[in-house]
Amino acid sequence: MRPTAPRILLLAFSWLSTAPACAGDALASWHEGKAKQAIVDFVRRTTTPGGRDFVPPEERIAVFDFDGTLTAEQPVYGQVAFCADELRPGQENGKRFSPDPLVRRIQALPLERLNDLSYAETGRLWALGMSGASADAVRGKVRRWFVSAEHPTLRKPRSALLYEPMLEVLRLLQSRGFRVFIVTGTLSDYLRAISERCLGVPMENVIGSQLRRRWSGQPPHEVEREPEFGDLVNGAAKVLEIDRRIGLRPLMAFGNSDGDLDMLTQATSGPRPGLGVLVRHDDAAREFAYDRASPVGALDQGLDLAGPRGWQLVSMKKDWRAVWGNCAHTDSKATVWTAY
Amino acid sequence: MRPTAPRILLLAFSWLSTAPACAGDALASWHEGKAKQAIVDFVRRTTTPGGRDFVPPEERIAVFDFDGTLTAEQPVYGQVAFCADELRPGQENGKRFSPDPLVRRIQALPLERLNDLSYAETGRLWALGMSGASADAVRGKVRRWFVSAEHPTLRKPRSALLYEPMLEVLRLLQSRGFRVFIVTGTLSDYLRAISERCLGVPMENVIGSQLRRRWSGQPPHEVEREPEFGDLVNGAAKVLEIDRRIGLRPLMAFGNSDGDLDMLTQATSGPRPGLGVLVRHDDAAREFAYDRASPVGALDQGLDLAGPRGWQLVSMKKDWRAVWGNCAHTDSKATVWTAY
Repeated sequence: MRPTAPRILLLAFSWLSTAPACAGDALASWHEGKAKQAIVDFVRRTTTPGGRDFVPPEERIAVFDFDGTLTAEQPVYGQVAFCADELRPGQENGKRFSPDPLVRRIQALPLERLNDLSYAETGRLWALGMSGASADAVRGKVRRWFVSAEHPTLRKPRSALLYEPMLEVLRLLQSRGFRVFIVTGTLSDYLRAISERCLGVPMENVIGSQLRRRWSGQPPHEVEREPEFGDLVNGAAKVLEIDRRIGLRPLMAFGNSDGDLDMLTQATSGPRPGLGVLVRHDDAAREFAYDRASPVGALDQGLDLAGPRGWQLVSMKKDWRAVWGNCAHTDSKATVWTAY
Repeated sequence: MRPTAPRILLLAFSWLSTAPACAGDALASWHEGKAKQAIVDFVRRTTTPGGRDFVPPEERIAVFDFDGTLTAEQPVYGQVAFCADELRPGQENGKRFSPDPLVRRIQALPLERLNDLSYAETGRLWALGMSGASADAVRGKVRRWFVSAEHPTLRKPRSALLYEPMLEVLRLLQSRGFRVFIVTGTLSDYLRAISERCLGVPMENVIGSQLRRRWSGQPPHEVEREPEFGDLVNGAAKVLEIDRRIGLRPLMAFGNSDGDLDMLTQATSGPRPGLGVLVRHDDAAREFAYDRASPVGALDQGLDLAGPRGWQLVSMKKDWRAVWGNCAHTDSKATVWTAY
């Protein structure tokens, strides 16, 4: 077959899209160093055809934790702050659930003290804060909150509290044929509201915790979210969900707390190449400094295991030239953003 | 900025890939008629910018049943035939589980009689047939079987028993920015072995039934599939899984049996446009003819609901010019195919 003109264009484009990118420049917010080098080298090794560690595109899976890995998680998770805001006295869910003693208690607590809630109480906080509206309506609420509610100490909206160096990693991997998944304890419904526009990750690539659901089969034929927490996706549950949803061992896993260690272990075991990366919060000046004893995002066992397991510890202070990145699309595509 | 040569190629390619496709030609294996027209019109309406029914790309979700919708399902589902083959006396799992009375019974039954097994027995057939090997090894087994095992009456391998008209629909939708998911009662592990190469659907877009899994956290750090059936994804479970995994109501749903009706209902309710399509097996000459009373893939309630709900009934006999399509990549990429 003689190549036709469109065919030549196609071939040319194929070449362009598979030509080795200058991966170093793609991580401009990273200082040169061991961590950056490990990421860049791993991507090069696994995507260079003919190399010993080459992995075909269909098997290039990378998984990322969300809170503390892609965005600030102190003093409380974004999901917690959002739900507490939804349960304030003037808000729809605040009014609806006001007879509930837990809701009255939440309304009286300062934000940081929400970390004192038990596991079951936190599950109920999420369930009551997120329930009552259709999935579409919940997405709209999360989006408005995400671009407007101010972080209590950093004084920026959540959409400006993403980690620029990690956004660069997401983009680098996607440009090299990796499919990127967010595997998070936060509710899928919350994160899916912003994953496509802020992270470039499609909704179905969010693997998060869930509220219980019900399908009655009756009009209006909507899946209802019940005000009841289902399963938390953390620790071993992250590994099991990755296996259920994707069915492949990831090549790369990025996390920041002990809840991510199973996922890093999964990615860095077995015959294929694997890279595990832990973000270390050691930058009190620009973000926060915390590790072993933190009530949120504790990194304890991970600090001990990183060496023996060959995981990369990323120092926010030393490895990151810049910290803060913005949700890319909130301004220019505001119409579509709220059109759900 | 002056466009450079590669940039011009890029622009040209962008134009090629977003220019309105001639959707009619994309469905060359379909006879002109109501069903084809409905699909083509729906795709045009939802993807034409500025139109009343335009849906932004991030919300373009289409879901497909597998057995009977994308491939032949008579006389028994592919999954059943595969597992029965794996449990034959000479095979690894056949030897391993030979003391099991159910396995001895399965070994003695002719293929068609496997439909007599109870729900629980069928679950065990799948679990025993698929267990014992790593996920990677299972994928390899399914692939070899899929391209080699001959269908008992149609006398072709499974890889040649895909429906060409439906492969065309998959490609049409993907070319118009739809993300396509297979939502199936068949095990994810089975279908993921062939989804990318035969259907162009990435593994994570397979939403299927599951065996129970275990993660011990101990070396060799593999997720183990236990020889125990988990949950069947059929009927209402299809809707709930779509909501859990994607979080959006699909715009289009394609099925062929009563187990798909909840999914079609989900897609065709609510404020967004929606299209439901049912493949009707009425072609005894080229495939099979069955509906209300079939032990496999019965379409009973669906025949009554299609009219009132506005779903398209596709007659295999009258609407399809050709029936059989091939797994596109089994030959040219055989190396990668078995490299897992």
